[in-house]
Amino acid sequence: MTTQKDVAEKAGVTVTTVSRVINNRGYIADETREKVYQVMEELNYRPNAVARSLSKRKSDILGVILPAVYHPFFSSLLSYLENYAHQNGYKIMLCNSQMEAEKEKNYINMLRAQQVDGIFLASHTLDIAKEIKVDLPVLTFDRQIEGIPYICSDNFKGGRLAAEHLLAEGAEELVYIGGSLELDLLSNQRFKGFKETVNRKGLKVKKYQCQLNSFDRQEYKKLAREIFRNKRKIDGIFASSDLIAAAVIKEAENNGIRVPDDLKVIGYDDLELARLFRPEITTIRQPTAAIARRGIELLLKAVEGEEVETENILDVELIKRESA
Amino acid sequence: MTTQKDVAEKAGVTVTTVSRVINNRGYIADETREKVYQVMEELNYRPNAVARSLSKRKSDILGVILPAVYHPFFSSLLSYLENYAHQNGYKIMLCNSQMEAEKEKNYINMLRAQQVDGIFLASHTLDIAKEIKVDLPVLTFDRQIEGIPYICSDNFKGGRLAAEHLLAEGAEELVYIGGSLELDLLSNQRFKGFKETVNRKGLKVKKYQCQLNSFDRQEYKKLAREIFRNKRKIDGIFASSDLIAAAVIKEAENNGIRVPDDLKVIGYDDLELARLFRPEITTIRQPTAAIARRGIELLLKAVEGEEVETENILDVELIKRESA
Repeated sequence: MTTQKDVAEKAGVTVTTVSRVINNRGYIADETREKVYQVMEELNYRPNAVARSLSKRKSDILGVILPAVYHPFFSSLLSYLENYAHQNGYKIMLCNSQMEAEKEKNYINMLRAQQVDGIFLASHTLDIAKEIKVDLPVLTFDRQIEGIPYICSDNFKGGRLAAEHLLAEGAEELVYIGGSLELDLLSNQRFKGFKETVNRKGLKVKKYQCQLNSFDRQEYKKLAREIFRNKRKIDGIFASSDLIAAAVIKEAENNGIRVPDDLKVIGYDDLELARLFRPEITTIRQPTAAIARRGIELLLKAVEGEEVETENILDVELIKRESA
Repeated sequence: MTTQKDVAEKAGVTVTTVSRVINNRGYIADETREKVYQVMEELNYRPNAVARSLSKRKSDILGVILPAVYHPFFSSLLSYLENYAHQNGYKIMLCNSQMEAEKEKNYINMLRAQQVDGIFLASHTLDIAKEIKVDLPVLTFDRQIEGIPYICSDNFKGGRLAAEHLLAEGAEELVYIGGSLELDLLSNQRFKGFKETVNRKGLKVKKYQCQLNSFDRQEYKKLAREIFRNKRKIDGIFASSDLIAAAVIKEAENNGIRVPDDLKVIGYDDLELARLFRPEITTIRQPTAAIARRGIELLLKAVEGEEVETENILDVELIKRESA
């Protein structure tokens, strides 16, 4: 049977180099990598990651559980997570929980059985806390669970920035529209930051929330319709995602309300798409790439047995475009 | 050490049932599943998928290689792929090649080392063919490689339907805008179907193509600008994706060209997003869910050692909305 030593000899490199190429760790010149692959092919050498995983008790796999891969924010986050994991020699096992608690639970057990080295968990179901055992590193996104480190954007500040901008632009009749506040998500802080800032000015916020576990265009549309069915003239809306903002703007213009002249709308996330809409969406930018990079860093620290900061809140900023 | 037999006894079920719960195969009543999980937790039983994988030479993992996870078409496809894989007791190892040939090659080797049971490959790099060995089941998406089964939407028909619709609406000055035709992708058939249909009417098509390996909003915008910088009055555009269509429509209206009054635009894909734009995008619908379902079916057939149809082309349809 061909061994790494055979490959190393024939390629004229050290066994360490062969191992690095196979595990995609450390710096390897393209030329060397190419040579090693070529020899591996000539000798028909197939490294067996499964056997290696058993012998070193490490799979070099990270589990990623997302509520909705098809949502542009999560697909962008996933793309970055995969990228940084790959740069560190890790593979991603993807789980799309579709916001079903039972599926999420199955996934956690499956990933444990698969001996992943750590889990990045963006949970959108109630009562996830009791499912998480600390027998392997877990990092949650936008969710705070006792004893588990978490990462998120500064949702509260995002809400505050949105409020400050709308107030500065003269809006007085303010609406918040977002996901269900029933779920114990840190993104609910967007509402809190928004409301507190508006209230401090002596003004009120009317809130509209989507049904539990929904990332659905139809649902956004329905909610947007409700807002404009109301008689009261609204002049400022903070939507908890750019997609919701787009749905609101569309519905507003369908009702003859011009954005931003009659109504100012701010989104959240700063999706690549935010600039494809007309008007381009003014938004609060989540630092998606930084969340992914820091998220992978934290998980790998935990995998190495190092202490990890519990609270990891990344800064946000207002991106002024056309809708507000 | 706790075994499956211990779990079965304590839960009052058969070992087969425990195994089914662990492997997520076959029908299991929610109550039974719950009970088995509970006992597993009480006994602190951790099934070891890695060891099982070695003993049965099957990992129950499928590799999925995509060119750009953040692109809404691929994130939607991925979401469905994960869903159908999960329903069949398979996990997804995700690889985001970002259209880099070297990364794609690394991934194929990595997935092989990981002993995945099969690979779903949407490659957007040149010369992938020689990297693919038939030592494990591979299904390609939108790409035809000798000896490898492939799946795609009926790209040629999509192009034909787009042309027929634009012609029926009276368009005469026609443009195609899409990804690089240099890559040997089956999606290039969209252009071919479009062009042949237009030519048969005695009319011509001007084509604009993105740079190799680009799914970039800036690139779409640049191309769209080029189209309208041209003096010739254009009245019909077929864009090879809804995102490109959205960029074109935005650029048109920035130039005072009204869609669909002055210019009709048809997209491709039928993203969920197509209905969020104003005007809503008329498009050719790829049957994304069906591609994923059939794709997983084909891969699992191949995993079982069964013969698999080489050519799997799924039907498309024109979805008439507002932009054409």
